[in-house]
Amino acid sequence: MRDILDELFKVLEQRRTADPDDSYVAALHHRGLNKILEKVGEEATETLLAAKDAENGGEAQRKALVAETADLWFHSLVMLSHLGLDHREVLDELARRFGISGHEEKAARSK
Amino acid sequence: MRDILDELFKVLEQRRTADPDDSYVAALHHRGLNKILEKVGEEATETLLAAKDAENGGEAQRKALVAETADLWFHSLVMLSHLGLDHREVLDELARRFGISGHEEKAARSK
Amino acid sequence: MRDILDELFKVLEQRRTADPDDSYVAALHHRGLNKILEKVGEEATETLLAAKDAENGGEAQRKALVAETADLWFHSLVMLSHLGLDHREVLDELARRFGISGHEEKAARSK
Amino acid sequence: MRDILDELFKVLEQRRTADPDDSYVAALHHRGLNKILEKVGEEATETLLAAKDAENGGEAQRKALVAETADLWFHSLVMLSHLGLDHREVLDELARRFGISGHEEKAARSK
Repeated sequence: MRDILDELFKVLEQRRTADPDDSYVAALHHRGLNKILEKVGEEATETLLAAKDAENGGEAQRKALVAETADLWFHSLVMLSHLGLDHREVLDELARRFGISGHEEKAARSK
Repeated sequence: MRDILDELFKVLEQRRTADPDDSYVAALHHRGLNKILEKVGEEATETLLAAKDAENGGEAQRKALVAETADLWFHSLVMLSHLGLDHREVLDELARRFGISGHEEKAARSK
Repeated sequence: MRDILDELFKVLEQRRTADPDDSYVAALHHRGLNKILEKVGEEATETLLAAKDAENGGEAQRKALVAETADLWFHSLVMLSHLGLDHREVLDELARRFGISGHEEKAARSK
Repeated sequence: MRDILDELFKVLEQRRTADPDDSYVAALHHRGLNKILEKVGEEATETLLAAKDAENGGEAQRKALVAETADLWFHSLVMLSHLGLDHREVLDELARRFGISGHEEKAARSK
């Protein structure tokens, strides 16, 4: 099974060094950390509002919440990438907390 | 390869119906959507502050940012679960946007 | 002494019913509560980032923080106005908490 | 007319140097800028949620929104105070933008 976040992170890393005029991801990196964090904050706000609307809403509101959450995760991945970090470190942290075996353990097992 | 988010979501679904006195996840669901969204907003804020500190910081600041991002993703997973949604829908949305084959396509292929 | 917030709120009320093409305030009301709240969330984020930059920054960073805080207060005034509320209610709440005589008490005294 | 924000800011400055065990304001300053900014972000989130609930709610929801907005303004005043700034600079900025005469102009006129 292919892992979507792994694939996505690979794409993000490739686009990081693209021409800022051609790539939204490259443009974000070019504009710097504050711009990326403004987007994270903006998408967090939009996620909250979409969740309130989804609570009593129908299918359109639920789709909108999925789209906003995707925006939030996407921009937090760009933030990690900008600072030389990685979604795997976040997933490993979650795995550790919940007693799920993560990347680190798998790496250890494959030795 | 095991998918950490799949495993985590399974854990979240199990704990959803646990005793709120025994489980943080059950307590969040019990307190309702606003409480869950307050946590999403709180962790988004802490992620932004941790990212600013990580920019000029060392290993401790980078670890703190990973932990805050994990908190943010975790609480957004609880939000999705509370509203009957799923991380796979978010990942599929990201996959669609970036031309990566996601769960839907895999499901189609496996028929 | 003229109270700036009173004056500002008067301006906001006047512009509320202006042509959305001519007035930013009218355009915000026209686009509805979610749009106004997105702006409140966005300006809150920018205030946090500006405060982090002001901590170790110079005069330019301090001016930027003042401008972002002004944006935050401004959009929260538009939010109150949109919902038929008033800055005086917020100030009275603050006055009550801190044992400062506020508008309500003044109104009572003037009887 | 007494200005509530002026009075409040005076109180905040007095409490700034109080014993952190006795005063919430002193405790916030003692814990530092990140803690203050976490509170600003938290109250911004709670304001957004309260505004969504006030939209279709009754008097209780409207009162809750006033209380949350008071929390937001209060913590942004503590933030300004922590960084050696002042609510008057924010109000003057708003006055300038809207062509309202503010503290600076008044100070100039009183010479």
